[in-house]
Amino acid sequence: MATYKTQIRSGVYYDSAKLMMLQRSLAELPGVLDTGVVMGTDSNKELLAHIGLDTPEVKAAKPDELAIVIKAENEKAADDALAQVDSLLAARKSQGGDEYRPRSIESAVEAAPDAGWVIVSVAGRYATAVTRECLRLGKHVHLFSDNVSIENEIELKKEARELGLLVMGPDCGTAIVDGIGMAFANKVRKGPIGIVAAAGTGLQQVSSRIHQLNSGITFGIGTGGRDLKESVGAITFLMGLDVLARDPDTKVIVLTSKPPAAKVAEEVLKKARKAGKPVVVNFIARPITTTRDGNLFFATGLDDAARLAVELANNPPTLTGDEDLPIKKFTKEQKYFRGLFSGGTLAYEAQHILAGYMPKVLANSPINKENQLPDAFVSQENCIVDLGEDEFTQGRLHPMMDNELRIRRLYEEARDPEVAVIMLDVVIGYGSHPNPASEIAPAIAKCIAEAKNAGRHLEVVCVATGTDEDPQNLNDQIAQLKAAGAIVDTSNEVVCRYVGRIMRALAERDVVEEKAVGKPVDLENLKKPLSCINVGLESFYTNIKDQGAPCIQVEWKPPAGGNEKLMNILQKMKAPVKK
Amino acid sequence: MATYKTQIRSGVYYDSAKLMMLQRSLAELPGVLDTGVVMGTDSNKELLAHIGLDTPEVKAAKPDELAIVIKAENEKAADDALAQVDSLLAARKSQGGDEYRPRSIESAVEAAPDAGWVIVSVAGRYATAVTRECLRLGKHVHLFSDNVSIENEIELKKEARELGLLVMGPDCGTAIVDGIGMAFANKVRKGPIGIVAAAGTGLQQVSSRIHQLNSGITFGIGTGGRDLKESVGAITFLMGLDVLARDPDTKVIVLTSKPPAAKVAEEVLKKARKAGKPVVVNFIARPITTTRDGNLFFATGLDDAARLAVELANNPPTLTGDEDLPIKKFTKEQKYFRGLFSGGTLAYEAQHILAGYMPKVLANSPINKENQLPDAFVSQENCIVDLGEDEFTQGRLHPMMDNELRIRRLYEEARDPEVAVIMLDVVIGYGSHPNPASEIAPAIAKCIAEAKNAGRHLEVVCVATGTDEDPQNLNDQIAQLKAAGAIVDTSNEVVCRYVGRIMRALAERDVVEEKAVGKPVDLENLKKPLSCINVGLESFYTNIKDQGAPCIQVEWKPPAGGNEKLMNILQKMKAPVKK
Repeated sequence: MATYKTQIRSGVYYDSAKLMMLQRSLAELPGVLDTGVVMGTDSNKELLAHIGLDTPEVKAAKPDELAIVIKAENEKAADDALAQVDSLLAARKSQGGDEYRPRSIESAVEAAPDAGWVIVSVAGRYATAVTRECLRLGKHVHLFSDNVSIENEIELKKEARELGLLVMGPDCGTAIVDGIGMAFANKVRKGPIGIVAAAGTGLQQVSSRIHQLNSGITFGIGTGGRDLKESVGAITFLMGLDVLARDPDTKVIVLTSKPPAAKVAEEVLKKARKAGKPVVVNFIARPITTTRDGNLFFATGLDDAARLAVELANNPPTLTGDEDLPIKKFTKEQKYFRGLFSGGTLAYEAQHILAGYMPKVLANSPINKENQLPDAFVSQENCIVDLGEDEFTQGRLHPMMDNELRIRRLYEEARDPEVAVIMLDVVIGYGSHPNPASEIAPAIAKCIAEAKNAGRHLEVVCVATGTDEDPQNLNDQIAQLKAAGAIVDTSNEVVCRYVGRIMRALAERDVVEEKAVGKPVDLENLKKPLSCINVGLESFYTNIKDQGAPCIQVEWKPPAGGNEKLMNILQKMKAPVKK
Repeated sequence: MATYKTQIRSGVYYDSAKLMMLQRSLAELPGVLDTGVVMGTDSNKELLAHIGLDTPEVKAAKPDELAIVIKAENEKAADDALAQVDSLLAARKSQGGDEYRPRSIESAVEAAPDAGWVIVSVAGRYATAVTRECLRLGKHVHLFSDNVSIENEIELKKEARELGLLVMGPDCGTAIVDGIGMAFANKVRKGPIGIVAAAGTGLQQVSSRIHQLNSGITFGIGTGGRDLKESVGAITFLMGLDVLARDPDTKVIVLTSKPPAAKVAEEVLKKARKAGKPVVVNFIARPITTTRDGNLFFATGLDDAARLAVELANNPPTLTGDEDLPIKKFTKEQKYFRGLFSGGTLAYEAQHILAGYMPKVLANSPINKENQLPDAFVSQENCIVDLGEDEFTQGRLHPMMDNELRIRRLYEEARDPEVAVIMLDVVIGYGSHPNPASEIAPAIAKCIAEAKNAGRHLEVVCVATGTDEDPQNLNDQIAQLKAAGAIVDTSNEVVCRYVGRIMRALAERDVVEEKAVGKPVDLENLKKPLSCINVGLESFYTNIKDQGAPCIQVEWKPPAGGNEKLMNILQKMKAPVKK
């Protein structure tokens, strides 16, 4: 029969590494079968319950109390083990023991004024105050601690943004700066790829795979998993992206995270499109609709992101901007596009592709019900009408055979002063009209001319589907359409993306560039050799030293011995919390 | 002031090509401003209303009545136009006028017994009976007609499947057989790619793009847009896929459609995996999670599908089967996998990838709420536990530093007789445990040995994240894990897909291969030079002839002059409808 003994200690603080060491040491003592050494939080108690160490004393323990449970062969072994707790706790790793250890962050900063970073891994309930102190001392913070409220996260990040400082975290496992890994990070060679990642192991997997593929990184910036929630608004993610966009050594950027809130994803991609360099995007589990959109390259997973980034770094792609778009020709009122399709699948794919470029695409045969065009015969906003749908074809010829209805509609759309772009499909081949361009091209020319007379530029784009062996001859059809002033391509995707880019540029045309919020991160400073201060888990300090970078360990203790009330008073006396 | 005149004709039947020709001829007459020539269906009346031709007579017209509206400069012009309707209707295209035109499908089959196909484009309400007749005469049917009920579609397709015949449609715009396009189709050179597509312009876009990329096709099989609905169950799609899988000339298969019902997609992909050749899949707007899974290659769009297919045809990939999987080693009871992760993002990506291989993956930190593992401390079914989540780490060390909890859990999972595969991540680097494999590898070895003693094979797979420059040295860690009997890779995706393939194979292991429903299509017969019969739109007949293939046009009229009651009686006398 095993014996269980429990000891509860109040008013103590040990970091979890210390507790783990204690637990291991106890477990190795003679006669000890199992041990649990945890703070008395509910989840820890549940954990102990699961492994059968939930003694009555454990059940009664409070979150700020340390619970030590011994399961031993007999009472004596349990008592002997408990008797050794104090001496085991007093034992200290010799390593680094002779270095100066300031007792406050302020003193650490005085001792190492060049340290750019503070790694913070104190218990969650102390982490906000510690981080705020670091920011006010002008330091970037790698905030490893979890259990920090989202309200505190937002407050800290907003303050940091005003100061041009990065808060990576809370719950940020990994970062690599100047080739030095902070917290959990791999030794990855320096190279041309910069990474911004929400979480820890995403960044570790991508950076390690990049290293394995013989490339390397400039920065690995972690943001914490909640940064891409709408309430946080990707503050650190966007700051990280901005840093990498400005950094001349970063040739390719990788962005990876779980799928962000829709609005946040849009904001991140918008900024990414302006990075001026290839950006590999992997929002894990977020559907990809294309592998490339301008300078954005979409990866299907972490491994794929690493592969793509290395490929792009080795073979830089040609990047073009939006110089080819006729944005300036449109009037201020022109803001909509209309798709008039004869082919259902082409119309469907067009909706799918264009949905990536604008908030909403209405259609008479919509992908999602909420995009239903109320009346197929009357266009509104951005919409795609499939004229091959039953409502148009009952007792009539299909629009591939009979252009009349579509041409009538084309004139209607062209006369709408809010319409900027009209997209048509021209599908030739057996069965289709013997020469559709002979009817459609003159109508296009007339529409463009009429619009011009009315002071508008009308962009008409066509996807021409068919072959050079078709009776109508694809090349001949294309020539007619081009002569009428249309932009023509044989790929539905190419045409849709051209339309999408115009619509995106039109939407952004009149938006007054928002005044940048906060202060940009000082890149020059960020690129200096890493020097840092560590508050919390001692192993992080050791790791930085092992990598050859200077680091100071703060001999940190919770203020007021962990008494929260007193702590708050102290905090208020020191630096009033911003509202 | 314009004048409107209307003529309503009852008890008449003209195909829509004829009506279009009439409309155009009328519009060209002197003094005529606009015309409408349509059957009096609601949607046609709406259409006329939209262009201002909804006279009171039109509003009163019935669906089986022909409405002719003239808008003219004056009354005389309108009357003159109406007076010419009969002679215009009587005018007949001279083309092919001297050929024999049987008045029934039966006679056509007698005249052309080798014709393998019938193209049917009669009005929807007659199409089911016509198609059934063709099937019973042993012909494949290209059913162009729309407005056929889904119940009739299902009935026709089931009958066809029993007979080993294809029903492409209803509402199937396109097909290419033996290089000959039926209905709407492009002249595409013959080549190594076979296509099955739900709808018309999808097939036209893909086949045309393949031609433009200098390749060609064997078959272009259309199925109609509803074939992939759950109620139809992809009957034609699966038969088409089967044909292409068996056809030795088809080296690459392309499958494209709007996204099928989930269950149908699964069925199609399952069959596609067994095709024994590369299959390019493009379910438009269906998210892709990978670009490749075995012989399946996922495209992001129609254009991408064409590009991929040509690339694969030009550079055949190496295809491997499931020979590498240890399926036979497992007991019958072993059917679950358990993922024990220390990295949140790795766990998240694993859920995402594995969701593609099994119906459900539970998790303590699930992608979707419905996959919530009720108790993080107790595994069930297929599940992924992230031991880095708060519930495990409050007041404890992270599982990357402290392996204890994970190893306890590993033993639990390994002892579960229903568990076949356990997946672990081993993340090294600064911050992590100094030698995780030294603790994890012996545990793995012990679990495998214990399972073996209990008569089970336990597959343990690890993703090892890190580099050769990490303090723990990735290669050394991998060597330890492999020596313990684990399968190890550095890519999370590679490991997950290996697990996924095992789980898929296990799920399929005990499934008794369903007896194939129906009769396989006679491939040899299908590959004979195309010869066909056309019922409906005359232009389809002309097109086949223009392409140099034999075709017979049936001088078809609705039975009983279109009187539905009488038609039903006739139909019943002829061939009783199957129940």
